[in-house]
Amino acid sequence: MKAEIITIGDELMSGDVINTNFSWLAQRLWNAGFEVTWQSSCADRPEHMSEAFRRALRSDVVIVTGGLGPTSDDRTLQVAAETFDKEMVLADDALVAIKDRLGRIGREMNEAQRKQAYHPAGGVMFANLKGTAPGCRLEVDGTHFIFLVGVPSEMHEQWEREVWPFLQSIQDKPLAFQQKIYRCFGAPEAELEMALKNFSVPQLRLSYRLKFPEVLIKLACWADTVAEVNTAMAQGHELLLKQIGQHVYANDDETIEKLVGRLLQERGETVALAESCTGGYIANLMTDVAGASHYFKQGLVTYSNEAKQDLLGVKADTLEAEGAVSEAVALEMAAGVRERAGTTYGIGVTGIAGPDGGTEEKPVGTVHVALATPGGVKAKAYHFPYGRMYFKQTVTAVALHKLRRQLIKAE
Amino acid sequence: MKAEIITIGDELMSGDVINTNFSWLAQRLWNAGFEVTWQSSCADRPEHMSEAFRRALRSDVVIVTGGLGPTSDDRTLQVAAETFDKEMVLADDALVAIKDRLGRIGREMNEAQRKQAYHPAGGVMFANLKGTAPGCRLEVDGTHFIFLVGVPSEMHEQWEREVWPFLQSIQDKPLAFQQKIYRCFGAPEAELEMALKNFSVPQLRLSYRLKFPEVLIKLACWADTVAEVNTAMAQGHELLLKQIGQHVYANDDETIEKLVGRLLQERGETVALAESCTGGYIANLMTDVAGASHYFKQGLVTYSNEAKQDLLGVKADTLEAEGAVSEAVALEMAAGVRERAGTTYGIGVTGIAGPDGGTEEKPVGTVHVALATPGGVKAKAYHFPYGRMYFKQTVTAVALHKLRRQLIKAE
Repeated sequence: MKAEIITIGDELMSGDVINTNFSWLAQRLWNAGFEVTWQSSCADRPEHMSEAFRRALRSDVVIVTGGLGPTSDDRTLQVAAETFDKEMVLADDALVAIKDRLGRIGREMNEAQRKQAYHPAGGVMFANLKGTAPGCRLEVDGTHFIFLVGVPSEMHEQWEREVWPFLQSIQDKPLAFQQKIYRCFGAPEAELEMALKNFSVPQLRLSYRLKFPEVLIKLACWADTVAEVNTAMAQGHELLLKQIGQHVYANDDETIEKLVGRLLQERGETVALAESCTGGYIANLMTDVAGASHYFKQGLVTYSNEAKQDLLGVKADTLEAEGAVSEAVALEMAAGVRERAGTTYGIGVTGIAGPDGGTEEKPVGTVHVALATPGGVKAKAYHFPYGRMYFKQTVTAVALHKLRRQLIKAE
Repeated sequence: MKAEIITIGDELMSGDVINTNFSWLAQRLWNAGFEVTWQSSCADRPEHMSEAFRRALRSDVVIVTGGLGPTSDDRTLQVAAETFDKEMVLADDALVAIKDRLGRIGREMNEAQRKQAYHPAGGVMFANLKGTAPGCRLEVDGTHFIFLVGVPSEMHEQWEREVWPFLQSIQDKPLAFQQKIYRCFGAPEAELEMALKNFSVPQLRLSYRLKFPEVLIKLACWADTVAEVNTAMAQGHELLLKQIGQHVYANDDETIEKLVGRLLQERGETVALAESCTGGYIANLMTDVAGASHYFKQGLVTYSNEAKQDLLGVKADTLEAEGAVSEAVALEMAAGVRERAGTTYGIGVTGIAGPDGGTEEKPVGTVHVALATPGGVKAKAYHFPYGRMYFKQTVTAVALHKLRRQLIKAE
């Protein structure tokens, strides 16, 4: 079945508020087996709302949020009634609920609040347990409109209690659904796309999302039975790994920092960092993972040459002869932090994030990433002239993937 | 003039991605004096995209983002051409630009990337300086379609360089416009709103945006002449500072990390960090600012007790008697890093980010923030039980604002 979402409100159209209701609702509709085909937002002008409602008759289910409150610019239900030629009628139980709720916080109901108990004839109102404005369902020519409040916490409560069971009830035969995300690193989107050009499994839908510096590939499947879904997903999984398996490092929400953390923890090993140009980005990312203290011992952001010498034991001679941005310094940083922190692994990173500091020989974007292990220390040079923020992100990903490959190899 | 925004992508319809392009674009269109009347998103299905494009002929300007990349589900321009009965033609300069860009990162152009240089006949392509997919303008029956890439940073660059000047050029009589953002920290949105309840200046529009942990207040003004705008904005500025001046720390895009960086650099002073629970967030934020190496000397992420002792000189007795999360340890961390790094200031942070590690006496969210200056070292305790990520952000803001107040005081 096809679903669409309409969000109403001036604050959305001015861009002052980011519309998070939409993605929240879209995820839940997809998971319920609905195909979300449209989303639209408009200001609370009757003529625009009316146009959006009429257009939405193309869908089986329409979720509308916003404009159910007491103020004069809350007129969603009024406009819906006019659009579909319905009377506005009073729902007695909704009125009682509004009075009760206001009574509990010591307030009397005024005219504006009373207005919230009116709805288009033929519709069904349902309660709002976290606020005064009730929700409403209305069927028009086979399309189910569901009107919800715009305040996220109130809307979520209404969804769980009223909307979700209703959506289950209108599906003749709910579709089975499964999805799996393949996290890829090291190949650009275009290359993955080329490699998957001939990927085709009936009932499976393949989509790409760039989450810099990664590409996330999603397989999604709806079918009549769970068995069918399982078969198609297993087939898709095998085919996908055959074609681009070398770029896939994890599934679903296992980010590189979570994966590396899990591998370290499973093996009872530890890591320490010596960062220069990434400025603490690697440490920050690794410590975003709850429980990082089990394997993350220390991260040193050594911007100055003195800090590299004092804290990591990088030799003055090396700095002098090779410069701070050099393979030799990266190697000494990684080995130094590993030795001094007494960890299994040490990572050393030195480079030029830019925009300033580049030279002809060492342009902005130059970076050396070193990994020290119990077996020795190795470094590699890269060039990522992507701008300061992307540079930090890319170098961090490169460093963590280097550690991941080491951890897997050693398994 | 009326503007609408169409965002295209399966990842939007599945709710996997929150549509931030929309609010970004809406704000800028308003600022340019356009009325944003519609916003819609659809999956990258030709029939839906086509319907959205045809419908958009109701507007004067239509901004379309997404679907310009190299993969098979990037087909925005192809669909636009079919919808409006145009041929797809090759833009030679776009092709050269794509080749060049790929060449600079050592890659060859493949068929998929080549596709990006095609556009509907009669349209005008414009460059993408941060990626390969160019943008395109196309006029259809008096409606200006502007197609931009979906990747925010690339889209923003295209907007500033190409779209903004174009939009200025098509307005008969551009309105004078000015806006100013007041960055507030330390007061919740509701409190600021109460304080500004009676704020009223003709032609000025006041709006709020929560950018955790800050609140950004925007004054915007449109009028026929620059003089009128200047008068209204000056009046608004004075009134706003009178009512909430104590919470405003900077204007426009001067974030706290930029402001602190500028103050340090102006004074020729330096800082070093000793972080525990913030895990490198402070270092990472400070080094996001270009030129940070002038005042940022080192940042130590000392997760383990050993690291606190070895690198900062925190006493074993203090750790034993007070615990790692204590005022005494924060003080020794700040003083220790300042002394060892030889900087003007030292910041020490120790706390419990959670979700684990809390006790009855020291619950999750407990944190001590210390600042060491040439005049001594002081610490303060806070409790931010906001979840790991919000905790890191809040503590970082608290630490940087502490440094800011010190820098201003010492002026």
